[in-house]
Amino acid sequence: MRVLGIDPGLRNLGWGLIDVDGSRLCHVANGTLHSEGDGLPTRLLSLFQQLSAILIHYAPQTSAVEQTFVNKDGAGTLKLGQARGIALLAPAQYGIEVGEYAPNTVKKTVVGVGHASKDQIAHMVRMQLPGAVLTGPDAADALAVAICHAHHAASRARLARALA
Amino acid sequence: MRVLGIDPGLRNLGWGLIDVDGSRLCHVANGTLHSEGDGLPTRLLSLFQQLSAILIHYAPQTSAVEQTFVNKDGAGTLKLGQARGIALLAPAQYGIEVGEYAPNTVKKTVVGVGHASKDQIAHMVRMQLPGAVLTGPDAADALAVAICHAHHAASRARLARALA
Repeated sequence: MRVLGIDPGLRNLGWGLIDVDGSRLCHVANGTLHSEGDGLPTRLLSLFQQLSAILIHYAPQTSAVEQTFVNKDGAGTLKLGQARGIALLAPAQYGIEVGEYAPNTVKKTVVGVGHASKDQIAHMVRMQLPGAVLTGPDAADALAVAICHAHHAASRARLARALA
Repeated sequence: MRVLGIDPGLRNLGWGLIDVDGSRLCHVANGTLHSEGDGLPTRLLSLFQQLSAILIHYAPQTSAVEQTFVNKDGAGTLKLGQARGIALLAPAQYGIEVGEYAPNTVKKTVVGVGHASKDQIAHMVRMQLPGAVLTGPDAADALAVAICHAHHAASRARLARALA
């Protein structure tokens, strides 16, 4: 199963792809998209097109987006929401499931504690995806979201088998 | 020139179309979209597809979205931002310009004062678009945004001619 993780943002949108085979995780690719052009509509379109190109190129079966914590001012939250809308829409247009995880859930799953620094997350992502070259902190966060989704999908599958 | 106005929202997204010929305004259509389906990604996709269908059917040359005032809690603002991202993306994907106007600018342009009630807006929209049947308050707001955009576009054109 191929999983796409997304750390949404208007300026920097992190993305990371992993392949999951049972409990084995394998790094595929990661990167950061930057919105281009003048004006918000053009920048959102730029993100949407770049993210759609990644979805077409790598063909993930499932995806997850970080449920970013609302700790900014109203204007910042609105901007983030707009970029997040694009991040949720892009996979949905191809019929790909989109999971949502709170940052604390991602950190607990990947690092073991709910309050982890960016460096700790990057370190644990490298440990769990040997050979992965992280292209930046947003891309590392996106891979952490993908790992979290893979873990929770596996738990759901085990639960479904136990209840069957 | 055909203008699409949008009053964004996840639950109710108002839209209104007018034709502008010099200073003459003519009502084309108005309505309210409701996001359908389970989960945020599916609901955003539903809004995007319905809005895209309106853009294809009515083929506006320009559009405008209300720059909704951030007065809600963080979670509400994030939700609104996500719907707003869709409202900005849908016209942009067809190369249609998207103007943004603060609610006070819309009210000042359509009603004459920055603080007008929903009823006042609906009344003035009916006055300026004879024969228009308003299908709801969000649709009335969307028509007000379209009227505001038409007015400002005309002012910009006059200014450009004066400076030429």
